[in-house]
Amino acid sequence: MISAPARVGAHVSEIDTPALLIELDALERNIRRMQERIAGTRLRLRPHAKTHKSTAIANMQVAAGAVGVCCQKVSEAEIMVDGGIGDVLISNEVVGAAKLDRVSALARRARIAVCVDDADNVQQLAAAAEKFGAKLDALVELNVGADRCGVETAAEAVHLAAAIAKTKSLRFAGLQAYHGAAQHLRAHADRRREIESAAGKVSDAVEVLRRNGLECGLVSGAGTGTFEFEIASGVYNELQVGSYVFMDADYGRNQDRDGAPISEFENSLFLLATVMSTPAAERAIVDAGLKALSVDSGMPLVAGCDGVSYARAADEHGRLDVGGNHRFKLGEMIRLIPGHCDPTVNLHDWFVCIRKEHVESVWPVSARGAVF
Amino acid sequence: MISAPARVGAHVSEIDTPALLIELDALERNIRRMQERIAGTRLRLRPHAKTHKSTAIANMQVAAGAVGVCCQKVSEAEIMVDGGIGDVLISNEVVGAAKLDRVSALARRARIAVCVDDADNVQQLAAAAEKFGAKLDALVELNVGADRCGVETAAEAVHLAAAIAKTKSLRFAGLQAYHGAAQHLRAHADRRREIESAAGKVSDAVEVLRRNGLECGLVSGAGTGTFEFEIASGVYNELQVGSYVFMDADYGRNQDRDGAPISEFENSLFLLATVMSTPAAERAIVDAGLKALSVDSGMPLVAGCDGVSYARAADEHGRLDVGGNHRFKLGEMIRLIPGHCDPTVNLHDWFVCIRKEHVESVWPVSARGAVF
Repeated sequence: MISAPARVGAHVSEIDTPALLIELDALERNIRRMQERIAGTRLRLRPHAKTHKSTAIANMQVAAGAVGVCCQKVSEAEIMVDGGIGDVLISNEVVGAAKLDRVSALARRARIAVCVDDADNVQQLAAAAEKFGAKLDALVELNVGADRCGVETAAEAVHLAAAIAKTKSLRFAGLQAYHGAAQHLRAHADRRREIESAAGKVSDAVEVLRRNGLECGLVSGAGTGTFEFEIASGVYNELQVGSYVFMDADYGRNQDRDGAPISEFENSLFLLATVMSTPAAERAIVDAGLKALSVDSGMPLVAGCDGVSYARAADEHGRLDVGGNHRFKLGEMIRLIPGHCDPTVNLHDWFVCIRKEHVESVWPVSARGAVF
Repeated sequence: MISAPARVGAHVSEIDTPALLIELDALERNIRRMQERIAGTRLRLRPHAKTHKSTAIANMQVAAGAVGVCCQKVSEAEIMVDGGIGDVLISNEVVGAAKLDRVSALARRARIAVCVDDADNVQQLAAAAEKFGAKLDALVELNVGADRCGVETAAEAVHLAAAIAKTKSLRFAGLQAYHGAAQHLRAHADRRREIESAAGKVSDAVEVLRRNGLECGLVSGAGTGTFEFEIASGVYNELQVGSYVFMDADYGRNQDRDGAPISEFENSLFLLATVMSTPAAERAIVDAGLKALSVDSGMPLVAGCDGVSYARAADEHGRLDVGGNHRFKLGEMIRLIPGHCDPTVNLHDWFVCIRKEHVESVWPVSARGAVF
């Protein structure tokens, strides 16, 4: 692991770049706002830790009222449990002997739930948990439009839920119903229509399961782009939102019901970069490229610099197109708003957390590289 | 840092996934072949370590005849020196007080060269080196078509070279002239034309510098896509090729003079992934997405599976489109050829190195995350 790019107490201008920057005031407001959104409802908040991969932030979310976190990988869940999180839903299928052993061992020391969409996998999971003397919660994943994992029909859900209920080591805990493909539909009406359709499918499955004596304790799903619709559905009772803690350029392109950019949550995550070459008036080169920023959802935005765009990412360089009268000086620092926060965070070993332009904390990205 | 996904001696089927896999026989052949390409010429090989970020591989390259390595970042160079590499060219500008101190300190214990394209930067670099009692080689970077860093004209190169030569702590070592934008032009004739043009510009600059009493000891550049033309130019005397050790899907789309895919180097790097969901006949989901593969240069290829394509990467999932009669089983492993090797390697903490389907070594990706 690379040494940290800043020391606590330093001024922001002393941070070595490129570095992930968290504005703590904004982060704290985002965490508080999401918790307020479910106050007075029967919903539970289980933020997705795949966004931040930080036990520090996970513990802040739990302290604010979250019931635990979601992870996407067993190795991520191990790190969250090591960091003090006692209740983790792996919102994903767990396949392969090594992972089945690890998740079962982990369930000896925390409450762990996993998702399933395959009958053989249910048996393998049960056998591994039994071997470790562990109990695991299992949710059946229902495909509600993302066309990724998950069963298609209520009948298949009943088949799997019944298989789970028959085992000694697994407990049927409900449904996983996350609609990833709906999160970045730009129009409010499009996102609402997709989630209404998903909620209808979920509601039918819950009812068919109930008629078969299989109660869904949990109906878990939702992301930052759609959570208001899952709340409104009356079907979901747990939210798995992740990106709201940081936001990013891609989520910033989503529109609210009036067609304006959504504004409920603030950008709290930035990439601090330095201008390392000013070879021409219309071009400046910064020290952050593909290894410091994920460009899968588009280029980052340049915060607070009108007329300047981040035009191209090479492995270690970013090219700024400089319009108007803006002129950069060599060594000048800029803040970039990442195109996509989750894979960008996963590139870095450290968060440099600032308040009033000074470093207050330096946190490891605890589960960086936790791909297994 | 995440624990390793395999133990030495294990069969490939026991590796936890997703994991970076190196076929050692292919890696060794690639290293040998590139060295053979310059045998009998006056060229030196200085492979780029930004591709592999591994001190193990850097040492193999030096053992095969390389004079040292290139790095793109000071923190990368520190790790290479710590790992036994005594001669490092940072093929990039070094800007900012923290980095200037670090590179100067590093030059106390290894031969270090850096690039410059700015007169103020020359003075800052000289002052830092003097403070540490260090000597640094400095190359003037010339823009030969990538439109990134680098000066445009021979006159500017003379101005900077003279400024370098006047300092006590820097030595003018020559020209950096890498044409990144030419590496992935598909047609052989297009790549040749670009490098012929670059070499003409370099040749003019070398001559103008010489007339001003400034001798270019080094003319360094070239990448895996174009090195044959830099060799042929008679102007370059050092090659900075990186990707040839691994190759990737993007380089595999380059054509040779007959229009066939280039075939001089082999794919030695793969991402081992597991099928974690088989929800429909025409779709399979693997456990490797954006956090295990960089998709900036296109999707990975599925090795040895005709009719199967990796169609879409989500954060932690990859969707395979399954055509023809191919059917995947849950838990089945596949090998993906990354779209772009450099940023893909940078996502991982470990290389699992295999020979005859068994793990022979597990190497850390020593400089992973070395973005500073």
